[in-house]
Amino acid sequence: MEKIYLDNAATTCLDKEVLDAMLPYMTSGFGNPSSVYSYGRETRLAVETARKTVAKHLNVKPGEIFFTSGGTESNNTAINAAIRDLGCTHIITSGIEHHAVLHTVEHYSNGNGVTFSLVKLLHDGHVDLKDLEEQLAAQDRKCLVTLMHANNEIGNLLAINAVSALCRKYGAVFHSDCVQTVGHYPIDLQRIDIDFISASGHKFHGPKGSGILYVNSSLEIKPFIFGGGQERNMRAGTENVYGIVGFAKALDLAMANYENEAAYIRGLKQYMAEQLQSRIPSVTFNGDAFGSCLYTVLSASFPQTERSEMLLFNLDIHNICVSGGSACSSGASQGSHVISALNSDPDRVPIRFSFSKYNTKEEIDRTIDTLKALI
Amino acid sequence: MEKIYLDNAATTCLDKEVLDAMLPYMTSGFGNPSSVYSYGRETRLAVETARKTVAKHLNVKPGEIFFTSGGTESNNTAINAAIRDLGCTHIITSGIEHHAVLHTVEHYSNGNGVTFSLVKLLHDGHVDLKDLEEQLAAQDRKCLVTLMHANNEIGNLLAINAVSALCRKYGAVFHSDCVQTVGHYPIDLQRIDIDFISASGHKFHGPKGSGILYVNSSLEIKPFIFGGGQERNMRAGTENVYGIVGFAKALDLAMANYENEAAYIRGLKQYMAEQLQSRIPSVTFNGDAFGSCLYTVLSASFPQTERSEMLLFNLDIHNICVSGGSACSSGASQGSHVISALNSDPDRVPIRFSFSKYNTKEEIDRTIDTLKALI
Repeated sequence: MEKIYLDNAATTCLDKEVLDAMLPYMTSGFGNPSSVYSYGRETRLAVETARKTVAKHLNVKPGEIFFTSGGTESNNTAINAAIRDLGCTHIITSGIEHHAVLHTVEHYSNGNGVTFSLVKLLHDGHVDLKDLEEQLAAQDRKCLVTLMHANNEIGNLLAINAVSALCRKYGAVFHSDCVQTVGHYPIDLQRIDIDFISASGHKFHGPKGSGILYVNSSLEIKPFIFGGGQERNMRAGTENVYGIVGFAKALDLAMANYENEAAYIRGLKQYMAEQLQSRIPSVTFNGDAFGSCLYTVLSASFPQTERSEMLLFNLDIHNICVSGGSACSSGASQGSHVISALNSDPDRVPIRFSFSKYNTKEEIDRTIDTLKALI
Repeated sequence: MEKIYLDNAATTCLDKEVLDAMLPYMTSGFGNPSSVYSYGRETRLAVETARKTVAKHLNVKPGEIFFTSGGTESNNTAINAAIRDLGCTHIITSGIEHHAVLHTVEHYSNGNGVTFSLVKLLHDGHVDLKDLEEQLAAQDRKCLVTLMHANNEIGNLLAINAVSALCRKYGAVFHSDCVQTVGHYPIDLQRIDIDFISASGHKFHGPKGSGILYVNSSLEIKPFIFGGGQERNMRAGTENVYGIVGFAKALDLAMANYENEAAYIRGLKQYMAEQLQSRIPSVTFNGDAFGSCLYTVLSASFPQTERSEMLLFNLDIHNICVSGGSACSSGASQGSHVISALNSDPDRVPIRFSFSKYNTKEEIDRTIDTLKALI
């Protein structure tokens, strides 16, 4: 029984073309990019070319892109720098952020004069912009606002320009975890006034262990990881050359084919939603599934029954990979903090379906057949 | 003209067998190790098997090994935790540490009640243990001692058990940057009483972007990078599965063939030193080159002449890769901080030759022919 992989918000397969771009740096081209001889300069060139590619797709200067070990490190770097270097002493975030933001915020606001608050959410899971403005207006301390661009569990898209406008109006630093959108969405940072964004390669068919942090060139911050002079003294450690090359190649491919692929994946999501509604009428959808929502994610909930409690387990037996929430918190015994924060009915069983260009309607049909039999 | 790569302390080529071990996780086996379905469990198994392999070679419990993005992150994690979680307010280190330690120590002891001091060095570059003991005895504050196991520029090996004994006697936390020795030296942590060691995969024919931190199980520390529950809540971020698998495979290969390879490389170093002395009598060697010194590194100095000033540049033109110091600081305009700290003659030109199992006597002959012509 062929595996059906519908958990592309957790991680995606590495594209063959991305692997092909990485392999030269895993075989003959292994020089240290910091070495001065020509052999090191070849890998340095690969790193700098990758930086230019990423910068081009985000429409920023290459000097504003820093390569990291992934989205989590990027989020940690931005939040740490906002507090330590930019003077932020209050953080406004939401209860449905990824733990890479939430747990970092909790850590840094633990008894050192830094506090945080959660912005209210509307019934559909969107950030309540009125509450955000009230919170910003009420603060006399410098604020960091960190709100993710697309939610990894329900797909809701942030009104990023509206949030940016509020941050600018009240002098707040603005960071957005764009791990679900970079590579899946056209992001033009000349049209979004923002301080930091984070992204991760393995969410768009690039390599694990690779990420970027965009840092607005108007900011002066220190490194999070200290040591050698790599990344213009901003991120020490010998560069993960293949990871960096793979990140850029994956982004290049994703953006080159964006319109076709997005339309295709959006069609799959729409098809799955329609089929679910017609064949399992008890289904409901979480978040703003058909409104301002990323086309790659569909979060559904099913009534709790003796059989549905074991839904994930049984789907696994049928070789169907989906998740109850974020992979990063799936080891935890409690349910999804995102679904809980939405005040959803605790007696329903949430399942996240997340799609890639490699999924097919046939896979969705088989998934729904299996679900129907299980519920 | 075939390239001669004598800069293996900067980085090494990825072994074919290591790449072969990584490739399954770059193609079909791409699941997120944190996912609960069986497909994620396959990669989780790969990560945990890698952890056991690493633990076996260091003779520690698997639960004491944490995978990181590299040696620099590991060093940052240990130093940060010693201050934040273990109550260290004074750091004793040396002036010849890698910048991943020195710059981190400088950062964390910058005006927050944490101070640091440098241990004296003997004429041959070894740590003055008498001075270390005097410093430890004079401190009434809790100390972190962070001293590297083998120096990356001169190869000097630390008397690690003697330092450990002093740390235990005075209640200090002991971290050692073992980036140059893990994979090149048998390290049995049941015979070294230590709190933290750092290692990096790409220094022993493993992948860039992969490292480990050993944390003694008696310690309770918090993460450096916050987020998901990966690495038993100690290092958040989706695991770099191929990097982790590659790290373990490279260590496995290195230790399986350690005695033969070490003898072979030691022979190359000896041969190079002898040939240099007989053909370029003005050569001198830095550090304890033929005493307690790693067999992979030979640091030589040559008299400064009009031609030797351009030595690295001219060796590069002849396709010979060597370095003046650490790759991580080679972008900086000043010379090596290690060679300077040894009070060496500033009018001599230092060159680090560092060897791997792939080097040959013929390469050394050609390097010396070229050097002789250039000096």
